[in-house]
Parts: sequence; structure tokens; C-alpha cells
Amino acid sequence: MFIPAIKGQGTEEQQQKWLPLAYKMQIIGCYAQTELGHGSNVQGLETTATFDPQTDEFIVDSPTLTSSKWWPGGLGKVSTHAVAYARLIVKGQDHGVHGFIVQLRSLDDHMPLPGITVGDIGMKFGSGAYNSMDNGLLRFDHVRIPRDQMLMRVLQVTREGKVVQSNVPRQLIYGTMVYVRQTIVADASCALSRAVCIATRYSAVRRQFGSQNGGPETQVIDYKTQQSRLFPLLASAYAFRFVGEWLKWLYTDVTQRLQANDFSTLPEAHACTAGLKSLTTSATADAIEECRKLCGGHGYLSSSGLPELFAVYIPACTYEGDNTVLLLQVARFLMKTVSQLGSGKQPVGSTAYMSRAEHLMQCRCSAQRVEDWLKPNVVLEAFEARALRMSVACAQNLGKFSNPEEGFAELSADLVEAATAHCQLIVVSKFIEKLQQDIPGKGVKQQLQTLCSVYVLHLLHKHQGDFLSTGCVTPKQAALANEQLRSLYSQVRPNAIALVDAFNYTDHYLGSVLGRYDGNVYPKLYEEAWKDPLNDSVVPDGYHEYIRPVLKQQLRNARL
Amino acid sequence: MFIPAIKGQGTEEQQQKWLPLAYKMQIIGCYAQTELGHGSNVQGLETTATFDPQTDEFIVDSPTLTSSKWWPGGLGKVSTHAVAYARLIVKGQDHGVHGFIVQLRSLDDHMPLPGITVGDIGMKFGSGAYNSMDNGLLRFDHVRIPRDQMLMRVLQVTREGKVVQSNVPRQLIYGTMVYVRQTIVADASCALSRAVCIATRYSAVRRQFGSQNGGPETQVIDYKTQQSRLFPLLASAYAFRFVGEWLKWLYTDVTQRLQANDFSTLPEAHACTAGLKSLTTSATADAIEECRKLCGGHGYLSSSGLPELFAVYIPACTYEGDNTVLLLQVARFLMKTVSQLGSGKQPVGSTAYMSRAEHLMQCRCSAQRVEDWLKPNVVLEAFEARALRMSVACAQNLGKFSNPEEGFAELSADLVEAATAHCQLIVVSKFIEKLQQDIPGKGVKQQLQTLCSVYVLHLLHKHQGDFLSTGCVTPKQAALANEQLRSLYSQVRPNAIALVDAFNYTDHYLGSVLGRYDGNVYPKLYEEAWKDPLNDSVVPDGYHEYIRPVLKQQLRNARL
Ligand SMILES: Cc1cc2nc3c(=O)[nH]c(=O)nc-3n(C[C@H](O)[C@H](O)[C@H](O)COP(=O)(O)OP(=O)(O)OC[C@H]3O[C@@H](n4cnc5c(N)ncnc54)[C@H](O)[C@@H]3O)c2cc1C
Ligand SMILES: Cc1cc2nc3c(=O)[nH]c(=O)nc-3n(C[C@H](O)[C@H](O)[C@H](O)COP(=O)(O)OP(=O)(O)OC[C@H]3O[C@@H](n4cnc5c(N)ncnc54)[C@H](O)[C@@H]3O)c2cc1C
Ligand SMILES: [Ca+2]
Repeated sequence: MFIPAIKGQGTEEQQQKWLPLAYKMQIIGCYAQTELGHGSNVQGLETTATFDPQTDEFIVDSPTLTSSKWWPGGLGKVSTHAVAYARLIVKGQDHGVHGFIVQLRSLDDHMPLPGITVGDIGMKFGSGAYNSMDNGLLRFDHVRIPRDQMLMRVLQVTREGKVVQSNVPRQLIYGTMVYVRQTIVADASCALSRAVCIATRYSAVRRQFGSQNGGPETQVIDYKTQQSRLFPLLASAYAFRFVGEWLKWLYTDVTQRLQANDFSTLPEAHACTAGLKSLTTSATADAIEECRKLCGGHGYLSSSGLPELFAVYIPACTYEGDNTVLLLQVARFLMKTVSQLGSGKQPVGSTAYMSRAEHLMQCRCSAQRVEDWLKPNVVLEAFEARALRMSVACAQNLGKFSNPEEGFAELSADLVEAATAHCQLIVVSKFIEKLQQDIPGKGVKQQLQTLCSVYVLHLLHKHQGDFLSTGCVTPKQAALANEQLRSLYSQVRPNAIALVDAFNYTDHYLGSVLGRYDGNVYPKLYEEAWKDPLNDSVVPDGYHEYIRPVLKQQLRNARL
Repeated sequence: MFIPAIKGQGTEEQQQKWLPLAYKMQIIGCYAQTELGHGSNVQGLETTATFDPQTDEFIVDSPTLTSSKWWPGGLGKVSTHAVAYARLIVKGQDHGVHGFIVQLRSLDDHMPLPGITVGDIGMKFGSGAYNSMDNGLLRFDHVRIPRDQMLMRVLQVTREGKVVQSNVPRQLIYGTMVYVRQTIVADASCALSRAVCIATRYSAVRRQFGSQNGGPETQVIDYKTQQSRLFPLLASAYAFRFVGEWLKWLYTDVTQRLQANDFSTLPEAHACTAGLKSLTTSATADAIEECRKLCGGHGYLSSSGLPELFAVYIPACTYEGDNTVLLLQVARFLMKTVSQLGSGKQPVGSTAYMSRAEHLMQCRCSAQRVEDWLKPNVVLEAFEARALRMSVACAQNLGKFSNPEEGFAELSADLVEAATAHCQLIVVSKFIEKLQQDIPGKGVKQQLQTLCSVYVLHLLHKHQGDFLSTGCVTPKQAALANEQLRSLYSQVRPNAIALVDAFNYTDHYLGSVLGRYDGNVYPKLYEEAWKDPLNDSVVPDGYHEYIRPVLKQQLRNARL
């Protein structure tokens, strides 16, 4: 993020000066935005950068305890430089938050420079990976930096202390956000597919109950409850992968447009990536834990790989935008789009369906038999109608408030649900679009069609309340959808292992005894256990000190 | 569990011999049931205990790798004895799984006895607490124990090798299960209230956005999205506490009946505790993680207390019965109850509502205004009708299968949903019953009534699909319920802090910087960070070895 920040917000000269140093690792940089007291609300940051016209410098300062930088990855122990975000103060006037390149440590001996207090913020969730990241804290005590270390692509401070807006539009910053969040969606599909791969393989190895006449027991993957918990996650892993690929395309498209000074699709693209970041990371975090539970007791062992995958993954729900805050942004965009529907302004991109509002507000789902729920157009219309009706209902309810901001606050829980419905529609429609393309490999397309239907119908079942209350689907149709879903599970079952093998993860990368490609789980679990340092001695270290006195009743000074 | 097992399954003499040793800690025992290959399916355990009439002993053996005992808490390093479950083999005949007291380690030097291989199973989820528990593995190589170390309350093996059923009914074992699971429900309410206390207090401390004219920002607890995520969890903490108290009563009641040889309520009590164990532990595990997310980035710090609370809590969803397996047992019980409805056999206890099947199958919810959703009878009837209709629908669908077991397997995902609806009804009805009693303290009852309505209406909203598809509630009525829920949140808000203070947890017990009673969060977070060992040195230990060579481009043998 140090490098993208300089790329996005630095001038040409700044990029030429700093990027090579960072690329060659002659300096190590971090992205220092969040403070102890401010994360989501970036505009509320308290660190100040005050221009001193006498010396042509900025004085960077942490005026309060809550203004201490807090969380930046790499800040605590490793970084020599930071892009620090601070309020720009010129001639007593506050010009809002901007980025400043600040050197933190000496390049000779790594000692913090004068005025800099820097350290690690301490232990985090999990026993491993994320704790090897030195998320840090940082305080500035009137630290002076040259004027040209303010990132000045958008706003400039001149030698004379004039604050000048450049002709580069502020919106460019959103381009960077689209980029970062798009990579987060790709990461979600990756983390999810790892967890699903482990749980699926182990579910085929694990047998429990159901032995007949002394034969082998049932593989737990054959239980319908296991399938109904696992296969939607498998389908989601594919769904997120496809929507991630599409987002990558969207980012390229937006970038090209920005270069041509076309900002028309930016708000939609921004809402779209924000919403998909929220949807995919929340779903993935939940799914990893569900996969762990699907592995029964053994999923709780570190050697299953799932605990650490969870611990390392979950902050994705919080960083780069808290998921609830992001959905509220999506909802705001949707309300704006709905309010403009009558005005002739055509909704674009992922909101294009809203232009068919008249139809979608009154259409009736045509599904009459279970097979009808396999038809892409039936499904798509149901999801479009649901999303639109939920947005329109919110907009109508908002209209009852005299103060729109008050209404938005009051109805925000409903608005989040409408935003979720919209984001789910995007994932569904991109999955369906993907299947309209040529897909190489014999039978692959058919498998993906099955997974697509699983993805769609499990969402429909999970959010049945939305579909029924908006009248998009009747109870009878919902029951048919559920019946179809059940029979799809039986179709996924024989290919489940192939579908996770297709992710092509090595055992080393998966890092899970339960998810081994060869299925040789039990001997390896047993082997792994003996590697634990606790097993180096037969009689445990604390025996003489703690256990023996208890057994021999020699607790002279017992404190019980 | 070592002690309850001996109490429940040991004869009088066995209890007299072993319990005092265990109470005085002259021996340390563990409960060794689960094996590498078998957890849920206890009847599938592979360890054998073969009677040797020549020496009047049992030979305990682990014939396969998968028969290794695996998971028992305290087994790895500390225990000297175990109640080990093994297949009783007498004269070549397999008499199923029974408990045997086996000494594992010498009482002199704690060395494992001949034929015993014992060790720790290795690292588990989390960085702290559960890893200090030595869940262990254990293999027997033809270990001989005297005949009187088989727990013989229910089944006896005589000197001559006769296998005799005692007159003590087998069902007694269910009594122990009711006991253990009832304590798990109480623990759920405790863990949940801790998490909710932390998240609620911090939500009142944390301010983000919404500053007007430079005034303070909005406390995040004032955001409706935060309330709609947090307050239902607060209400659940109270709900689980009350249902836990009721279960304690139920256990006493069952015990008294068992002593009077009345087994009539046992199946219902067993289903009830199994279902509530599943419902409360699943909800609590999810809720702890939601509370962590509600704390934003800082919830990810170990010092928030939430990561370790989660890591230590979650196995409750798996041990003492995997939650899905338990719900399937509840569903089986419900199907049996439904099938007997016509037969004159009256459903008892938590299924008593089913006797009003005729009414509940066709009743219509009377709610016409938002306030109607505060009426206990309106709510209760809606939940009863939903639960019953879901069970009846499953029973009807089961009837379409010629093989009932096949039908049960095929429909098991729906059956789990019906079981969940039934269990939620129990919690709802016990909350309502509690409020019909006298409750001391001015205004307390009114607060609890508000929480009860929050609990009920958030469930109704979350499972709207169930209520709508079964026709228990119309879309219009569901919308009214949601509106009522929103206004209840505003009523909870002013008392939210008092409602968590009422749990009466000390800061020490909570173990959370975010959840401090005095709200002094930021200075303490800052203080806490400096205690991390990483901060003992200003220049980190690895600087000369790892960081400097990178910065100084001295990577002679760079492997990049
Ligand atoms: C592992 C990790 C790595 C990180 N790395 C970096 C880094 O490298 N650099 C950096 O600068 N930062 C980093 N961060 C910080 C991260 O960006 C913030 O934690 C994140 O932006 C969330 O902000 P917050 O912590 O202030 O949450 P808060 O905003 O305090 O959230 C608390 C609660 O309030 C709610 N809430 C907040 N505002 C609103 C609103 N307007 N309406 C409704 N609800 C609201 C949220 O939904 C949440 O439930 C990292 C964080 C973590 C956990
Ligand atoms: C922290 C911890 C402490 C423990 N302490 C002890 C202890 O002290 N003593 C002891 O003996 N044991 C102990 N255990 C073991 C524990 O009791 C088992 O892990 C538990 O019973 C679950 O069984 P399992 O692991 O075999 O899960 P499995 O049965 O293998 O579950 C795997 C998956 O299969 C599914 N499944 C299984 N059967 C069915 C079915 N019939 N229908 C549908 N789905 C099914 C489950 O829902 C799950 O999703 C402990 C476990 C843990 C995690
Ligand atoms: Ca850990």
C-alpha cells in the first residue's frame, strides 16, 4: 500500500524519486492511515501536518493520544518510511486529510529518528501467521519534513504557502480503492477454496455411522446435511472466482476511462467493488469456520490448517473498509439510483437492471416445475425483482421522513439488506454470464452449471423471506426450488473431489493434514501429534513441581 | 467427566472405591471415549476389552491405528487413570461399548505403565487457553485390568464369564447426558454475555463519523446497524440464561422421576437438552465472532479478549455431540411425536403444544398493528404454528418414501430446520414464562420484556422465510414486526450499558481492554501494547540479520 499510495497520489517527480527506492528495497515503507481513535472515518484523523513557510517544511505532529497511528502493517519494527495521513494545516486553515512521506528510522542503524516514537501494537488473533506481521503504533512529536514530501498530485502547497488544487480530479483516489478491493475479492475466492478443499477431501475420508452388516461406515460427505452445508460453499468458491475475474476486467475498464477523463462509470464501479468486497469477505470468513465445523473434532487441531486460515483471513472483513460501512455506501448509491429512475438518467453497469423497474416491480415468477429453477432467465429475473423491490421499498420508506439523513440512519438495517440483495444479484449474474461463454474441457460446463444452480438456489432458500415478502416467488415455488436444490446436491456429489482438485493446490500450500491429496489422514495425524514438543518427554516437565505434590497430598501451603 | 461416568455407570462398590480417590486427587482421571476414527458414532468404537476367564481380567487393546484414543482432555500428560470406552468381548461375542477404569501411569514416578502409549495430540485453535489443556492420545497393547474395573451398574460380567443385564435400566445413561448438556447451555449464556458485555461497552466508547460543527462524533452504539447486530445478541444472552435455569430444573425433575422409576419424560427431556445444547452453542460461537467484528479493527487484538474467548468456546459446538447430529436426533423425536398425534398418546413437556395441532395448523396470526407484536400470546402462537407446520410438512414428505430411513436421510436438511424451529420455540416460551413470574427490582421486568420482544422479533425477521412459507404470518405482518423491532432497539439503547453491567463481571474476569468498566480504553490499549516483548528493544532483534542486508543490498546469496 506504500507503493500504490505514491503511485496514486504522488506527482511524477515524487514517483520518480521514491518508487525506485521502494522497489529496490533501499527503503521499506508502510501505509499509516488508521489511528487509535479513527479507522473508518478517515476524514476524522487527528494527526496534523502544519506548513512552516519560514523553513519550507511541514511539522508533523500527534496532538492527542487517539491521534497515534495504530495498525499499519510493517510499521512497528521493520519500516524505515511511511506514507502518513495527516490534516494539512496552512496559515491556520484546515485543508483536510492528505498523505505525507515521513522517514521513521535511520538508514544507518535503524534507530527511530528524533521525534518519532514507534512500536508494535501487540498480539493479535491466532497463534501464527498474522502475529509475525508487525502492525505498529507511531507518534510524531513535531517532526519536520521537506515540503516536497507531501503527496501533491491532487492538491499542492506552494513555496509561498498557497494551497492549489491541481487539474487532476480527486476521483482518481477511488480508482486506487477499486484496485485494492478487487484484489481482496480475488483473495476471498482463494481462501474460501482452500477451506472447501480441506473440508471436502476430509468429508470423503471420514466415515461415521451407517455401517450395514459390518461393512464400512458412510462417508460423511454422503449425508445430506453435510452436503447442504458444504456444497453451497464449494459453489461460492467458484462464484467468487468468476466475479473476481470480472472485477479485474472492470478495474481495467475504469482505468482506461479515467485516462480518457471519463468519470461516468466510476461511482457505479466503486459501489460495485465496495459491495463485493463486503459480500465475499463476510461469506468467506463464515465459510472457513463452517468448513472447520464440518471436519468435526479434528477440525479444531492446528494441523487441520483451518484455525490459522480463519485467524489470518478474518481481518479482511474489517480492513479496507468495515463491511457494514461499505454496505451502507452501496445502499446510498442504490437510493440515489432509484431516486433518479424517473429522471431519464440511465442506470449503468451492475445497476442496469433497474431501468426495467416497471416490469420488475410487477412481474411474476414463471417457475411451475422443479426443472424451471435451472433456467437462467427464471433465476435472474427473481433475483433482479427481489433486489429492485427491496431498494424501492427502502426508497419509499425513506420518503416518509422529512429529514432524509435521519431516515437513512433510522432505516439503515433495512438498507444493508437491500444492498446485500443487490450484491448477491451481481455475483449471480456474473456466474450466469460466465456460463454463456465457451468453456474448454469435456463436461466442465455442465459441472459449472450445476454449481451455478446450487449457488443460486441456496441463496434463494437462505433468503426466502426476502423473495416471499416482496412477492417475487410464491411459497409453492420456493418449495420447488428447494426440492431442485436437494437433487442438485446428488449431482455434485460424484464430482465433488474433482471440483476441489481442480483448484490445483499442493499439499504444502494447503498446509492441512485433513486435506491431504492422498487421503492418508489418520497415520499423518498420528505422526504429526508426536512432533509436538510436549511429547519430547514421557513424564511432563511440570510433574515434580505440580502434579506429584497433588497426587501425594503434599500441598502444605495449599491455597484452596 | 471421569467422576460423572463412575457415578452414573459404576456400582455402589465401585463408587465407594474410586470416587474418594478422585475427589482427594490421589488419582487424576480423564474420560477417554473418542478415538481417531470415531467420535459421533460411539457405537463404532474399535478399542476392545476381552474377558480372560483364566485370570479373571479384561485385556484392553487398540487393534488398529484408528482405535487410538484421541481428544480426551487431561489424557496426554496429567492423568493417571482413565475411564476408557471399549467393546466388551466375552467368549468371542461382542457385547457393545462399555466403560472400563484403566490405570495409565505409575503413581510413583508418573511413567506410563507397560502396554500404555500416551501423549499429547498437539496444538489446537487459538494462542492460549485451550492449548494449556493436554488433550491426549492413548494406545493399549494388551493391557490387563481386574474384572471389577469394568463399570458394571447396567451390565455385569460374572467370574464365570456370564454377561448379565442388571435391573438398572439403560436409560439412566441419558440422565448423565441431560446433566452434562444442561451445564453446557449455562456456559453458553455465560460466554455470550461476556462477549456482549465487551462489545456493548466498547460501542459506547467508540465514536466514529457524524460530528456536527466540530462536536464529538457519534457513539457507534447509536447506529441502527450496530444496534441491529448487537442488541439481539444481548437479548440472546438473557434468553439463554433463562432457558439454562429452566433446564437445571428439568434435570432435577428428571432425576426425581428416574429414582421413582418413571421414564416417561426422559425421551422428551433428552431431545430438549440435545436441541438446546446445539442451538445455544452454535448461536454463541457465531455471536462471539460478531461481537469481535462489532469492535472494528481493535477487536482483532488479543487484548480485546475476544479472539481467545472465541477460540476456547467454539469446540462446544462439536464436543458432547456434534450440533448437526444432535439436531437430527431432535428431528427424529419430533417425527415420532407427530406420527403418534392421532394415537391418543399425549405429547409432553416442550412438545405439549403439538396436542393443539388442529388449531395450530389453520390459525391465522392476529397482529394488525405494530404493538400487537408485543403480545406474548400473539408471538407464542406464531412460533408454535411455525414449528408445528414445519414438522408436519416434514412428516408428510417422509410419508412419500417407501423406506422411511431413506426418506429421513434424503430430507435431513429440512428436518434440521424443523428441529431448529422447535428449539427456538422452547427458548421463546421459557423467556415468556419467566416474565410471568415476579421479578424484583424497579423497572427490571419492563427491561426484560423489551429484551424478550427483541429476541423474538429478531428471530422472526431472521427466519421470515419459515413464517411466510408456512403461512403463519403475512408479509404485511412481518413488516409490522420489523418496524416494532426497530423501535425496540431505541428502547434498549438507553439501558444497554446497565443491562451488561448487570452481568456483574469484573474487569479481571472479562480480560478485555475494550470492555473495561471505566471505559478508559485508549490509554490502556496504548499501555498494553508497550508490554509486548517485541517492544523491549527499539531496534528489533532480527535487524542485523534480516533487515539491514536488504536495505544495504548485501544479499550476496539472494535466493529471489
Ligand atoms: C489486521 C489489520 C491490518 C490493518 N492494516 C492497516 C494498515 O496497514 N494501514 C492502516 O492505515 N490501517 C490498517 N488497519 C486498520 C483498518 O483499516 C481499520 O481497522 C478499519 O478501517 C476499520 O476501522 P475501525 O477499526 O475504526 O472500525 P470502527 O469504525 O471503529 O468500527 C466499529 C463498529 O462501528 C461500526 N461503524 C463505524 N462507522 C459506522 C457508521 N457510519 N455507520 C454504522 N456503523 C458504523 C462498524 O460497522 C463496526 O461495527 C488494519 C486493521 C487490521 C485489523
Ligand atoms: C476441544 C475438544 C475436547 C474434547 N474432549 C473430549 C474428551 O474429553 N473425551 C472424549 O472422549 N472426547 C473428547 N472430544 C471429542 C469429541 O467428543 C468429538 O470430536 C465429537 O463427539 C464429534 O465427533 P467427531 O469428531 O467424530 O465428528 P464427526 O462425526 O467426524 O463429524 C464430522 C462431520 O460429519 C457430520 N456427521 C457425522 N455423523 C453424521 C450423521 N449421522 N448424519 C449427518 N452428519 C453426520 C458432522 O455433522 C460433521 O459435520 C473433544 C473434542 C474437542 C474438539
Ligand atoms: Ca492463536
